[in-house]
Amino acid sequence: MSEQTTVPVKLGDRSYDILIGSGLIDRAGQEIAARTGARRVAIVSDENVAALHLQHLTDSLKAGGIESTPILVTPGEKSKGFATLETVTNAILSARLERGDIVIAFGGGVIGDLAGFAASIARRGMGFVQIPTSLLAQVDSSVGGKTGINTAHGKNLVGAFYQPQLVLADTDVLDTLSPREFRAGYAEVAKYGLIDRPDFFAWLEKNWQGIFDGGPERIQAIAVSCQSKADVVARDERETGDRALLNLGHTFGHALETATHYDSARLVHGEGVAIGMVLAHQFSVKMNLASDDDAKRVEAHLRHVGLPVSIGDIPGELPPADKLMDYIAQDKKVARGALTFILTRGIGQSFIARDVPPSAVLSFLQEKHPK
Amino acid sequence: MSEQTTVPVKLGDRSYDILIGSGLIDRAGQEIAARTGARRVAIVSDENVAALHLQHLTDSLKAGGIESTPILVTPGEKSKGFATLETVTNAILSARLERGDIVIAFGGGVIGDLAGFAASIARRGMGFVQIPTSLLAQVDSSVGGKTGINTAHGKNLVGAFYQPQLVLADTDVLDTLSPREFRAGYAEVAKYGLIDRPDFFAWLEKNWQGIFDGGPERIQAIAVSCQSKADVVARDERETGDRALLNLGHTFGHALETATHYDSARLVHGEGVAIGMVLAHQFSVKMNLASDDDAKRVEAHLRHVGLPVSIGDIPGELPPADKLMDYIAQDKKVARGALTFILTRGIGQSFIARDVPPSAVLSFLQEKHPK
Repeated sequence: MSEQTTVPVKLGDRSYDILIGSGLIDRAGQEIAARTGARRVAIVSDENVAALHLQHLTDSLKAGGIESTPILVTPGEKSKGFATLETVTNAILSARLERGDIVIAFGGGVIGDLAGFAASIARRGMGFVQIPTSLLAQVDSSVGGKTGINTAHGKNLVGAFYQPQLVLADTDVLDTLSPREFRAGYAEVAKYGLIDRPDFFAWLEKNWQGIFDGGPERIQAIAVSCQSKADVVARDERETGDRALLNLGHTFGHALETATHYDSARLVHGEGVAIGMVLAHQFSVKMNLASDDDAKRVEAHLRHVGLPVSIGDIPGELPPADKLMDYIAQDKKVARGALTFILTRGIGQSFIARDVPPSAVLSFLQEKHPK
Repeated sequence: MSEQTTVPVKLGDRSYDILIGSGLIDRAGQEIAARTGARRVAIVSDENVAALHLQHLTDSLKAGGIESTPILVTPGEKSKGFATLETVTNAILSARLERGDIVIAFGGGVIGDLAGFAASIARRGMGFVQIPTSLLAQVDSSVGGKTGINTAHGKNLVGAFYQPQLVLADTDVLDTLSPREFRAGYAEVAKYGLIDRPDFFAWLEKNWQGIFDGGPERIQAIAVSCQSKADVVARDERETGDRALLNLGHTFGHALETATHYDSARLVHGEGVAIGMVLAHQFSVKMNLASDDDAKRVEAHLRHVGLPVSIGDIPGELPPADKLMDYIAQDKKVARGALTFILTRGIGQSFIARDVPPSAVLSFLQEKHPK
């Protein structure tokens, strides 16, 4: 089985493997049975993913001797809230699962965050396995143990650090994603190059088409991404330091998501991150940290794969720059009143900048979004 | 300051101190400031506790240089649910507290469980300090990190293991409890003697009046109780083994609480535990594990302090024995279908019995509750 690779996440007694490859749903039952010993699981998924893949997974589990109860939620970010959390948690309890049994998150980032959080609180912690079905979830949200929901105060402000026991990233499933959704996930792949792997970014510039087409480059790109994230998480599981690097592009990105009211017709998370990464590079140029050539190279590559790269690429009206600045200040990555940003000295040279002057950010935003 | 003692809870990087003594609310501001460095807190409390003690605590915090936001909930078990959890968590976020800031649980067991759970999930984990105001909370629920809420499926089925950074048990506050509430907490004090400290139980038989009257025996009894619980928790934080001993009396007790619909006019938690501990001893006699003399001694002491000791002591109608049995089977302490009970070989000799035959429990219940 050459089309499979394993990335270990090293977190002491919370260590686990990420399996990446073709045909992994077929082997999900045997892998879960062998690695966890579980015989009963709940599968949390959304109606779209379930329509395409639930029977496949259920059959595979059954072949591995595992009985499963599906728990389906409405697709979309709206399901990441207290109401659905309560529904899913109660459904896990209704299924009479015990502490050693397993909750499987089977879907994209919303499902992983929601199901992982429910798994962490049901009986004060059930077993948990991630089977991410979007590129974004495979390379980002399923790795590292951040789970949670949104509230009126912002995204992901309520949740738990809760590691899965196993992640199965079946790369075949990605063929059922829309091109737009695949591209959005690709923004997070590119992010790892931009954080601290300049060679990987250069490799992506040459090989991105193979990733999109499902060639062997796809498994390789996902594996490098998961390894990158696993390395950061192993150094800083609870985000007291280095883990913040993973937020490259996210401070601007979240502000834009808030500004578009999380309307996925206008902007999805990965697109916000793509624009945010370009802005982070441009802002770093403005702060005399990075070269304009590097910022242009980032913009060119992301535009080349079809991602939006500027605030003007977002369809519809946006609030003025000072309002965007308010959203940034409200973001959770505010430590004791000071603004913390991920800035860069060039491709693959990102760093955590604390005490960034809010006035500099505002004047940059006014330049990029003059109205 | 001879009227204060410290019990350390040893849990590696989650270790903390329990301070027990007179006048601790007066010193809360300085202790919290010195030990956590926090300058901003939310105080989660209920309206009854707030009316009596909130100003006192707020003044003390202010004197320690700490700014506080009160978050008040309706008194009673009904507040331990998803709806109030959402309200409290949102109020913590509204107060703009950051990760290093602190949520103080200021009240009895309900407040400690609810506020601790909210602290664990708000921003994926805030600082947390317990200031328990009931005897039950001081000797039991504030120690050991179990937090959570109830659902339609049962008590405490949703929650987190989340350790506080500090517990302040002010023994003066207990003078404002009703005699019934104090007695109910005393059942958990006696429990530690019955689990594995026969000398402590004998000491309680002689010194209980001093504990009720607020003599120096009170601080001593609370300290021994906290130490007992801390020892068990240090051995088994996540209840995979020994920690289950703390459930002595709780399996029967929870069934009786369910049977009375958690109507505190009929039965409060500590009363259920008192009856449950007597039943656990009597059932152990029936199973030829313990002597009838020990069971009678337990019953006599608990009755002497004014606690209910039999199913017949509960006012109003109760469902029949086979229904009580159903409640027991639904309790979360069911591992893979087998009944697990805490039984005893005599006072201070409790042990975890797995695979207790349900038929033996049912016939014992029919004997004790013939209808």
